[in-house]
Amino acid sequence: MQDGPARLAEMQLPHATVPTPVFMPVGTVATVKAVPQDVLESLGAQIILGNTYHLYLRPGHERIRQLGGLHRFMSWPRALLTDSGGFQVFSLSKIRKVTEDGVEFRSHLDGSKHFFSPEHSIAVQLALGADILMAFDECTEYPADYARARQSLDLTLRWAQRSKDYFRAHFHEAPWYNEPGPDSQGVTGEAVAGGMWDGEDAPENPAGGAIDTTAEGQTVFGGRYVPVPGKIPSLFGIVQGGMYLDLRRESAERLVEMDFPGYAIGGLSVGEPRHLTREVIESTLEFLPKDRPRYVMGVGYPDEIVEYAALGVDMMDCVLPTRAARHGLLFTSQGRVQIKNKQYADDPGPLDPTCACPVCNRYSRAYLRHLANTGEPLSAVLNTVHNLAFYLDTMERVRDSIKRGSLAGLLAETRRRQAEAETQPGLLESEAS
Amino acid sequence: MQDGPARLAEMQLPHATVPTPVFMPVGTVATVKAVPQDVLESLGAQIILGNTYHLYLRPGHERIRQLGGLHRFMSWPRALLTDSGGFQVFSLSKIRKVTEDGVEFRSHLDGSKHFFSPEHSIAVQLALGADILMAFDECTEYPADYARARQSLDLTLRWAQRSKDYFRAHFHEAPWYNEPGPDSQGVTGEAVAGGMWDGEDAPENPAGGAIDTTAEGQTVFGGRYVPVPGKIPSLFGIVQGGMYLDLRRESAERLVEMDFPGYAIGGLSVGEPRHLTREVIESTLEFLPKDRPRYVMGVGYPDEIVEYAALGVDMMDCVLPTRAARHGLLFTSQGRVQIKNKQYADDPGPLDPTCACPVCNRYSRAYLRHLANTGEPLSAVLNTVHNLAFYLDTMERVRDSIKRGSLAGLLAETRRRQAEAETQPGLLESEAS
Repeated sequence: MQDGPARLAEMQLPHATVPTPVFMPVGTVATVKAVPQDVLESLGAQIILGNTYHLYLRPGHERIRQLGGLHRFMSWPRALLTDSGGFQVFSLSKIRKVTEDGVEFRSHLDGSKHFFSPEHSIAVQLALGADILMAFDECTEYPADYARARQSLDLTLRWAQRSKDYFRAHFHEAPWYNEPGPDSQGVTGEAVAGGMWDGEDAPENPAGGAIDTTAEGQTVFGGRYVPVPGKIPSLFGIVQGGMYLDLRRESAERLVEMDFPGYAIGGLSVGEPRHLTREVIESTLEFLPKDRPRYVMGVGYPDEIVEYAALGVDMMDCVLPTRAARHGLLFTSQGRVQIKNKQYADDPGPLDPTCACPVCNRYSRAYLRHLANTGEPLSAVLNTVHNLAFYLDTMERVRDSIKRGSLAGLLAETRRRQAEAETQPGLLESEAS
Repeated sequence: MQDGPARLAEMQLPHATVPTPVFMPVGTVATVKAVPQDVLESLGAQIILGNTYHLYLRPGHERIRQLGGLHRFMSWPRALLTDSGGFQVFSLSKIRKVTEDGVEFRSHLDGSKHFFSPEHSIAVQLALGADILMAFDECTEYPADYARARQSLDLTLRWAQRSKDYFRAHFHEAPWYNEPGPDSQGVTGEAVAGGMWDGEDAPENPAGGAIDTTAEGQTVFGGRYVPVPGKIPSLFGIVQGGMYLDLRRESAERLVEMDFPGYAIGGLSVGEPRHLTREVIESTLEFLPKDRPRYVMGVGYPDEIVEYAALGVDMMDCVLPTRAARHGLLFTSQGRVQIKNKQYADDPGPLDPTCACPVCNRYSRAYLRHLANTGEPLSAVLNTVHNLAFYLDTMERVRDSIKRGSLAGLLAETRRRQAEAETQPGLLESEAS
């Protein structure tokens, strides 16, 4: 179901059916900072992120594999997406050396030397056992001149092919691969070799079309190749190309030729102005297939996630709600609240009167201000729970608006609210620890 | 109901009926560190502590009073006990001056100058609106010579009388005093002037005896004066006297003459060897009335709380379970676990296989070790939830054993387990922030 370019759909992943557009909370090092897993479940999170770079360093992917994979390790039964580690290698490691083969880098923790190739990144992600893995990419810095952006894009495309080749040969190594799924008994590796959406080798292809439509009229990504939810991971490709729209187009087209089950737009939220982010997203989406999920990595503010969903983006993730929460910056239906401000010290009202989250239901602004002001650990817990609830609720409203064909109204309302709030730069960099 | 000197009873407090013996988690600055209130409720905590000194400094007792009292401020509907502030004034403030009138001290936060008298301590506690308030005392340092301990004890007794006088004149100022209680409609200040157990002025005294016994044979403290739970706070006196048993006896006897509804043994856990703590408790209990709750402040390890309950102590509090949790020290039925240790890195089992807490139900030792090792905020949350569950469960087992007359067996078993664990000194000092 569509509302303009925006799409309402479902991703049938091995560990969860995920309605899209979806916002994915970031669980850097096998935990969404400060929030217990049962609370994430009760907030309705169906998919969260893990960071390959961080988990590779601590506690180590082999350890997690031995313990049954990341789902079991962190006791998260729903879907997981792991990034490729590329972004952190480039943003956290001060000393690194990029070659055709991969990246040699030093750990930001202890300076120890490590090497990531596309093959190694996928091996690590398979050991973690994500539902969705990301191809290893070079995240192009900003600003980058045209020649540099082209060279980086070419490298990323060669790495994408190597990522895919390694994935196709090894995807059955996911720790849960042989476990029977709740809805799938007989789907085996051989039957659907190549992964969930990447089905050219799959002997079974009953749904036939590129888009499967459920009884409720919702688009089901992946219906093409695996009509029942199977326990097979998927590998997404990543579009790069800096802020050059022709390079973005080339990157997208060459990536689509490789036929991934989903596509991410990477290399954004790296310091560029917001109008450029939007321009790159809007322009790149044109060259990505409509029957595959489209994921913009590392965005954004509440109004941005509504805006990008309206452009046709299906998946987003960002550390903003969790990181901002730990600094007392809270998102509400009435705009941003810096809860440490003195003006809330005597305020008995809820943080957001229209919010139904457990924090707004129970605690006052005065109490949240007090916790933030005294540096109490409960401050991070409650603030994060609210901000995540606000983001997840925002996406639920987006999905609801698409269903009712009223997304334009929601977008206008969201923009009006955000225009009233001052921008707070410096909060969008990636989670460092 | 008794099992040796141990007693099974209930305290009917304005905000909760509290079964005793009870362990009270410490909520220093209006939060039990890292644990949301709904989790405390689900763990079965019926009463928690607030620290008068900390709350006086931040966010300020007047602010809390304006916001409806501490229960409403922190959204804690069950019972609260506040200490007198005396312990923190003496342990946290480097510069202080004790006079007959009270203590002048400087804030450990910003060096600002403050003054606490017995009257002011009670005024602050009434503004906070605790169910149980503590008389303002001087916590005698350890070691202290006989003359010093006597002088300190005398001062504390004069302060106890002043605390009581002020309390009797002002207890109706508790912020919730005029709210109708769930079980009590018509109990007014005049009818029970003086507080819940302190009923010599109370015109109604239907229960008559010193100990009221419910249908289940349980002793109900307070049944003497207020047969239905009324919304009236109570003030407890504090026994001092250093480690001198004759001074403890004198302190207890003179305090009992003042007729408080409950008595605390203070000035312990100040660095003295454990056998002295026990000796002082056992000896002091002899001189405290059997029909009033007896509270030992600031104890202890899991085996100690069982041991002291067996001696006849009804109430205990300690920062140990919460503070140790934040340092990775966890208490289990199999002894102490330092979860940061490498030996747990690959351990898929639950922290404590016999524990039914939400942490042991869901997470592995390997995961808890990883969280502690990476300094993740979720580590403090989960570790604290488990340690509190362990303490609260321990007390539930104590109550159950008293009921079945088998406390001696539980005590022997607890002692055997703790003998296997090494002692970890330095963890029992009071919470500093």
